[in-house]
Amino acid sequence: MRPYKSIEWLAQEKAIRLIDQKALPSVVEYNNYSTVNAVAQAINDMTVRGAPVIGVAAAYGLVIAVFNEESNDVAKLAASMVHADRILRASRPTAVNLFWALDQMAERVAKHQPKTAAEYRQLVLACAQELEAEDIAINKNLSTHALTLLPKDKVTFIHHCNTGALATVDYGTALGVIRMAHESGRQVHVFVDETRPRLQGARLTSWELQQQGISHQLIVDGASSHVMQKFAVDMCVVGCDRVAANGDFANKVGTCNLAMVAKANGVPFYVAAPLSTIDLETSCGADIEIEERASEEVTEIDGARVAPDGIDVYNPAFDVTPAEFITAIITEKGIVYPPFLENLQKIKEL
Amino acid sequence: MRPYKSIEWLAQEKAIRLIDQKALPSVVEYNNYSTVNAVAQAINDMTVRGAPVIGVAAAYGLVIAVFNEESNDVAKLAASMVHADRILRASRPTAVNLFWALDQMAERVAKHQPKTAAEYRQLVLACAQELEAEDIAINKNLSTHALTLLPKDKVTFIHHCNTGALATVDYGTALGVIRMAHESGRQVHVFVDETRPRLQGARLTSWELQQQGISHQLIVDGASSHVMQKFAVDMCVVGCDRVAANGDFANKVGTCNLAMVAKANGVPFYVAAPLSTIDLETSCGADIEIEERASEEVTEIDGARVAPDGIDVYNPAFDVTPAEFITAIITEKGIVYPPFLENLQKIKEL
Repeated sequence: MRPYKSIEWLAQEKAIRLIDQKALPSVVEYNNYSTVNAVAQAINDMTVRGAPVIGVAAAYGLVIAVFNEESNDVAKLAASMVHADRILRASRPTAVNLFWALDQMAERVAKHQPKTAAEYRQLVLACAQELEAEDIAINKNLSTHALTLLPKDKVTFIHHCNTGALATVDYGTALGVIRMAHESGRQVHVFVDETRPRLQGARLTSWELQQQGISHQLIVDGASSHVMQKFAVDMCVVGCDRVAANGDFANKVGTCNLAMVAKANGVPFYVAAPLSTIDLETSCGADIEIEERASEEVTEIDGARVAPDGIDVYNPAFDVTPAEFITAIITEKGIVYPPFLENLQKIKEL
Repeated sequence: MRPYKSIEWLAQEKAIRLIDQKALPSVVEYNNYSTVNAVAQAINDMTVRGAPVIGVAAAYGLVIAVFNEESNDVAKLAASMVHADRILRASRPTAVNLFWALDQMAERVAKHQPKTAAEYRQLVLACAQELEAEDIAINKNLSTHALTLLPKDKVTFIHHCNTGALATVDYGTALGVIRMAHESGRQVHVFVDETRPRLQGARLTSWELQQQGISHQLIVDGASSHVMQKFAVDMCVVGCDRVAANGDFANKVGTCNLAMVAKANGVPFYVAAPLSTIDLETSCGADIEIEERASEEVTEIDGARVAPDGIDVYNPAFDVTPAEFITAIITEKGIVYPPFLENLQKIKEL
């Protein structure tokens, strides 16, 4: 039994059940989402967050659309999917999984020729369930490949943001690597970047590590260089929202700082990236749209005001790390080393 | 008229008046401190913070000691100073100004031979007032020297922590540089690192810049690389708590991250350092004691809990930036460039 689930399809209710990631860790609360707009809103306001699980949530958004369509006309069902697709695509701009998952749904559905409305609805559901199951397999494969990168007995990580079972359907990407290291019997310790402004490290990653009994210490994002100087840190491992063809990648703001600090301190820096996050259509990091979010994320913390009234804030949700700061990219099909332009293409073609 | 004062000697009350830096920016509150223990406590709990003003507060701690000593025996007054010196020295370990100011007080007092208790008390007070006045002059000289480093018309800074009139007796060190740039007629913009965990940037620096009408935007500490990639940042400028003989320096945690990010992005990185913070007795950064503070600074923000209960935290208050990441050190006697081992010695001998 999994102790918590980021996302679950409720067959009876024709709805998804999401753990409220905004309420964690103080409250463990699940809510049901039974309309396309509600799913898009949950993605936008970060009730559900993490590139892989956003993709699956969007896929189920399409399922909800076809179940909510009253007409039993197959063309109308197809139209309701297109309409829902447009709403879901507008929910967050940076993570490519959202778009990838919606593309996958359209492609997989198109492969079949369902004749009845019932068949159509079951097909869309089956495609979403496929993506859901694939995500878990991808994360476990990716994490297994990463074992070859780890020292044999003892490994100390720095991790940024949250990339665990909460950010995925299950197991996690970068946190999956850490979990696999722990399950392999290695002595694991994790320094957890709190990850301002939304504190996904403090609120979510430390909660997940606590549930899993993995040794960890919370640090402020600015402490990573000091930690590398004082302790034997073996590697940084992070997730990603989009990898460009040249290896530049977008991830939660603060990732690029960590990568540069890692390089300056001689600490390897790994990106855990399901192939779905590798976007060969985007040539380099400069082409990735970076979402800017509300200033209150910075100036208010749980209602407490931490800056003067009327202040101007610049709040990018993501940053782009240039490829030169990445040691390697960990995928479900193996480890990708530089030159990334060549090797990312190869692994996508495998 | 200064709109706010970090520290003020109250001749009538034989006490110092401190602005409560923990209550800013929501509440502007002043309190009086009339015992040595109260002054040490205010330094320790960061009611008063910032290396230069801590030094002056400690100097006035000695003044309070001799005024509180009931005996009119000069030897007893001297003993009360030694006793107070010990208490004040234990308040915070990293900033050298605290120790430097206490050493200066002992030296300056020792130069005279006061015969009566009244003379002795007036002498100790005069020495503290001298240090207080010198601090303002030092900051203005340092900021004037920095003008030579700035572009002529327009300058964009990234600044970490707080180094303004609050952190000094007046004018500020790194924020003094920014203020001087503004007063020189340049078009100034400042990206303000919020500076976790205690948010001195969000709470204090943005408040000071707001009072002074200097254009600024608050950012999370992890956003600095993205800011450098997206905007034309001319330089980072920070204060410091201690510079070692080789140029390594200790400052608020997050400073080293910023320096490394600046170097990776080709942005100059300057340290505003009164000569009193340059400690030739400390050979390199590894010899600087780094204060660790309570985990609640990270897990609680204004009473709101942002991490699971029972979590382990590592909370260093400072970090050490290796000298190779510094473009130059700005002092009241001029700009010091590498090689620092040679040039810091030279400027100290001027």
